[in-house]
Amino acid sequence: MKDIDIHQAPIGVFDSGVGGLTVVREIMRQIPQERIVYFGDTARVPYGNKSKDNIIRYSRQIIRFLRTQNVKAIVVACNTASACALEEIRPELDLPIIGVIKPGAKAAAGTTRNGRIGVIGTESTVNSQLYTDFIHDLNPDIRVIGKACPLFVPLVEEGWLKDPVTEEVARRYLEDMKQADVDTLILGCTHYPLLRSTVGKVMGAQVTLVNPAYETALELKELLQREGIAAESAPDSTQEAWPEHRFFVSDLADKFKDFANSILACEISRIRQIPIENY
Amino acid sequence: MKDIDIHQAPIGVFDSGVGGLTVVREIMRQIPQERIVYFGDTARVPYGNKSKDNIIRYSRQIIRFLRTQNVKAIVVACNTASACALEEIRPELDLPIIGVIKPGAKAAAGTTRNGRIGVIGTESTVNSQLYTDFIHDLNPDIRVIGKACPLFVPLVEEGWLKDPVTEEVARRYLEDMKQADVDTLILGCTHYPLLRSTVGKVMGAQVTLVNPAYETALELKELLQREGIAAESAPDSTQEAWPEHRFFVSDLADKFKDFANSILACEISRIRQIPIENY
Repeated sequence: MKDIDIHQAPIGVFDSGVGGLTVVREIMRQIPQERIVYFGDTARVPYGNKSKDNIIRYSRQIIRFLRTQNVKAIVVACNTASACALEEIRPELDLPIIGVIKPGAKAAAGTTRNGRIGVIGTESTVNSQLYTDFIHDLNPDIRVIGKACPLFVPLVEEGWLKDPVTEEVARRYLEDMKQADVDTLILGCTHYPLLRSTVGKVMGAQVTLVNPAYETALELKELLQREGIAAESAPDSTQEAWPEHRFFVSDLADKFKDFANSILACEISRIRQIPIENY
Repeated sequence: MKDIDIHQAPIGVFDSGVGGLTVVREIMRQIPQERIVYFGDTARVPYGNKSKDNIIRYSRQIIRFLRTQNVKAIVVACNTASACALEEIRPELDLPIIGVIKPGAKAAAGTTRNGRIGVIGTESTVNSQLYTDFIHDLNPDIRVIGKACPLFVPLVEEGWLKDPVTEEVARRYLEDMKQADVDTLILGCTHYPLLRSTVGKVMGAQVTLVNPAYETALELKELLQREGIAAESAPDSTQEAWPEHRFFVSDLADKFKDFANSILACEISRIRQIPIENY
């Protein structure tokens, strides 16, 4: 009985806001039989310019909440929280937890041919140097160039995905990367895959863009199998038989719904707001 | 004895982050003898895209903190909190409190010649319609055109104050204002006075830009006199005799200091971080 329970238990996924839905999208594509409980910290978004201490505290509160939903594993879908809080929190937990940084670093290290990798992300993510550390664990000879791109998230949230303004901002942010002749660029913030075509245009077709969301979903799939906790039944092909995902936010459920429905293939109808500070 | 105390008591000023320092700057200019206790909610910034309920809750916590500092009056230096929380909170308080919206609205209504006023600000401020309501209280015939400009704050924080990108963004945001032929434009977010020259260039010299920070400092001065609680002694001309202001934040004191010292005329040395969620 207990075994059956854990196989059917949901996966907890959290992010500072809506961006982590790009990770949810990849999980739904690659392991559609798994149920997801998502939490977006829309009351305290963004994390990218806040302190490590506060990001750790916020992450602990969210994990306490996710545990009330009986999750079997946790995915930190936020690059900033993965960079600033994951290693601190992992020893406190008795269930598997993965972030987006290590899978992204591994994919980039396996992709580069000239040994030069660029990382773009929030200020906290880039300053943490964690992408660099993980890449150097795999190959200390790779040169890693980081650049914080604080305007990218507001540009995505404004919906200016393929816009001359966004392209000019990207040109400015990515100038050093081009100068450094990177052949692989990690999109180190969950919003950035939505700017893939603009970033790709600026960097040129010879540069491979790594989306950590995709790599993380792959790693999650392997992890669930390795631990023997993967969901057993594939979903029926009718929409009614899809696993029932659950979405929670700390602020403004309606606004979240609009963004979610623009990113995810399935329609989200119910999103609940919870007082995360109480956890 | 009690009278002397209240005259010398500080004024509490709060904002979602650093922007409210533009209001502090105006208060320091116009009533330099007053002591200020500032709180910037840098752990939960920005407020502009968050719900009214959360903004009210955050404002209540901050006011509880400011009362521990024995303030004699409170200035809500944040347009969003002024728009979403001030009217709700005022009846709960036994000390004077003012926001930035009413003074800004009054100045604009007194300035316009053609009866068309523009208001730019965060999404929450513009959606609240509060500038429009206050302007209509004074003159119901004035036409008010609002526009949320969500990229302006991140552009200011990136330091791109007079930049071709910022100018292009401003052109796009302000197009409707120009079409509507407004002759007065309210800079309805504390960061926007830092974009005054770019906004002025786009709107043209015939449009008057109203800075609510300036008007709020004027109203505060009158309020303190009316209530008989103004500080009595003018400051000495030596720096040592300046009133000792105090600055508090909920996150990252160092980063705040850099921004503060770029805005304020006096050097800020000590900024304390406090756990605002506990208030």
